[in-house]
Amino acid sequence: QSDARIHDIYHAVPPQNVRAGAFILSNVAPYFPAGTVHCVVIDPGVGTDRRAIAVEADDQYFVGPDNGVLVPPARELSDNNEIEVYNVPYDDETESNTFHGRDVFAPAAASIAEGGDFRDNPIDDYVDLNIDFYGAEFDGSTARAEVVYVDRFGNVITDLEGGKVLERADYGDVIHVNRSHLPFEDTYARVPEGKPLCTVGSHGNFEVSVNQGSGSKALSLEAGDEVEIEIE
Amino acid sequence: QSDARIHDIYHAVPPQNVRAGAFILSNVAPYFPAGTVHCVVIDPGVGTDRRAIAVEADDQYFVGPDNGVLVPPARELSDNNEIEVYNVPYDDETESNTFHGRDVFAPAAASIAEGGDFRDNPIDDYVDLNIDFYGAEFDGSTARAEVVYVDRFGNVITDLEGGKVLERADYGDVIHVNRSHLPFEDTYARVPEGKPLCTVGSHGNFEVSVNQGSGSKALSLEAGDEVEIEIE
Amino acid sequence: QSDARIHDIYHAVPPQNVRAGAFILSNVAPYFPAGTVHCVVIDPGVGTDRRAIAVEADDQYFVGPDNGVLVPPARELSDNNEIEVYNVPYDDETESNTFHGRDVFAPAAASIAEGGDFRDNPIDDYVDLNIDFYGAEFDGSTARAEVVYVDRFGNVITDLEGGKVLERADYGDVIHVNRSHLPFEDTYARVPEGKPLCTVGSHGNFEVSVNQGSGSKALSLEAGDEVEIEIE
Repeated sequence: QSDARIHDIYHAVPPQNVRAGAFILSNVAPYFPAGTVHCVVIDPGVGTDRRAIAVEADDQYFVGPDNGVLVPPARELSDNNEIEVYNVPYDDETESNTFHGRDVFAPAAASIAEGGDFRDNPIDDYVDLNIDFYGAEFDGSTARAEVVYVDRFGNVITDLEGGKVLERADYGDVIHVNRSHLPFEDTYARVPEGKPLCTVGSHGNFEVSVNQGSGSKALSLEAGDEVEIEIE
Repeated sequence: QSDARIHDIYHAVPPQNVRAGAFILSNVAPYFPAGTVHCVVIDPGVGTDRRAIAVEADDQYFVGPDNGVLVPPARELSDNNEIEVYNVPYDDETESNTFHGRDVFAPAAASIAEGGDFRDNPIDDYVDLNIDFYGAEFDGSTARAEVVYVDRFGNVITDLEGGKVLERADYGDVIHVNRSHLPFEDTYARVPEGKPLCTVGSHGNFEVSVNQGSGSKALSLEAGDEVEIEIE
Repeated sequence: QSDARIHDIYHAVPPQNVRAGAFILSNVAPYFPAGTVHCVVIDPGVGTDRRAIAVEADDQYFVGPDNGVLVPPARELSDNNEIEVYNVPYDDETESNTFHGRDVFAPAAASIAEGGDFRDNPIDDYVDLNIDFYGAEFDGSTARAEVVYVDRFGNVITDLEGGKVLERADYGDVIHVNRSHLPFEDTYARVPEGKPLCTVGSHGNFEVSVNQGSGSKALSLEAGDEVEIEIE
């Protein structure tokens, strides 16, 4: 029996949402120790000719599909943004076409965890979606951001870095978010229960929330939606 | 690498519901061994001046917010209802304001699990909601109870102790629950599939259920609702 | 402290759905090592006179209710379809009537995992639903199948073996499924996002799916529904 310790991180990534999966994993990976192997199954292209890959960064490893989901978390771990990517060959005659999590990624991750070699086929033409979870910028008093992810509480996480808001506004100010005027507060409970606010979330992103409620419902915002943030 | 063993108990507590969380933890904690450290993140007041606390009872430990959620499970473990509560200091300049589960409670729980000292700052002015999960009483033939929790099957768990019902009724009798006349049975399958009943659940509470269905839907009962129970 | 390693397989079986639970467990069990004890709590008859049983097959063990859920996964493991079934006695005066997962099955599973004896009471009159997850057959060009299970992505898994379809159709053909004409493809991404298809899933069953969507919603199919499959 292996000594490997297995932890389920999360089974509630919106199905097939590569961007949400990359965001969650980017936030979680830095808290895992050296030697961790992350097996990632967000794989809308399973069974096509997309490759399986293993990514190495800062002594952690990621195994999954070559669809871009592994690149942001690996870059997050890397001091200099450099990552090593390897092709993971598999026999598409013997494996299922619809569940490589079971048939390709998990066995490859187990092999790496046990010290198996995986560095035979380095590649540099891996899929890179160039996702920037903090990419939105202000143009004058207005920033156009995108919703990266809605967490299970309904907090709306945008790709506007909280620091850029804090350069222009103080907690206690009002910020225009789409057509709403929202108090900008340092945490949820600064507004009454059920009331909306905006804040800087635990990932460092500008977020739209409702105290003990759902910012997503209150402002009708879903992953991928545009958000206009205006600070007067 | 630590030898600590990590178990996820439950991620489906209704968000921010301190009472439901306290109920679930009260039921679960007695089945864990001495030395267990429970890290509890039901924390609507995160980032305000509410304290972080560690609670010790019967050689188990609870770490979480000082909002009342840790007190009932700790009392459940304690022979004499006495518990020890300690303040867990943290630096609110360096930690996030919105995710103390990650930044404060988990590190403190890990430290306690590794034998770290946490008893420097005993307090006795901790938040005590005086929750009594068996507090409802009969007045004559009628009891007014409250719904403590609706589990994922839809079973409606009230704060009326099952024993108080069994003093007044036998299995097979009919009990009036709000406007419904429900058979009182010792288990779900005593009534046809889809039919409502009332019973004494596995926590010892009086429950309203539907065989292979949802008592919550059938009687429109949610956590916090009042329930009138009448035994003729 | 025990050296047993505990893994939660799945908490999202549709409540009380013995057939779905048996299907999931049949697919998962072969990936677990010898000595594994599976504790199974899909138990609509809890607290009635249905028995608790332990099943042994190919050096794995299953503990749960005698309602048929344990038999298909045990047979799946057995080379010759033979399984050994034992009654697990319990005291119905001291245990709850509504949560044998906690009070009967888990303690029995723990005892077996620690090497405890459980073979005192062999039985052969256990409940056998004779579930065949690949039981549908073609009659001429048409097969009448049943939906075994809808997974969390919305893939509709039928009891028609994929191999029987592949004898009559090639990937790229069109297959009539109820009133829909669906492309038969080797994986989801062969059709545009949001479009329906049929395929042979990772369990070897004929499935109805939507690329990055829900086959269940698109064709209004739920577990237990009949599906007519016609290959011209």
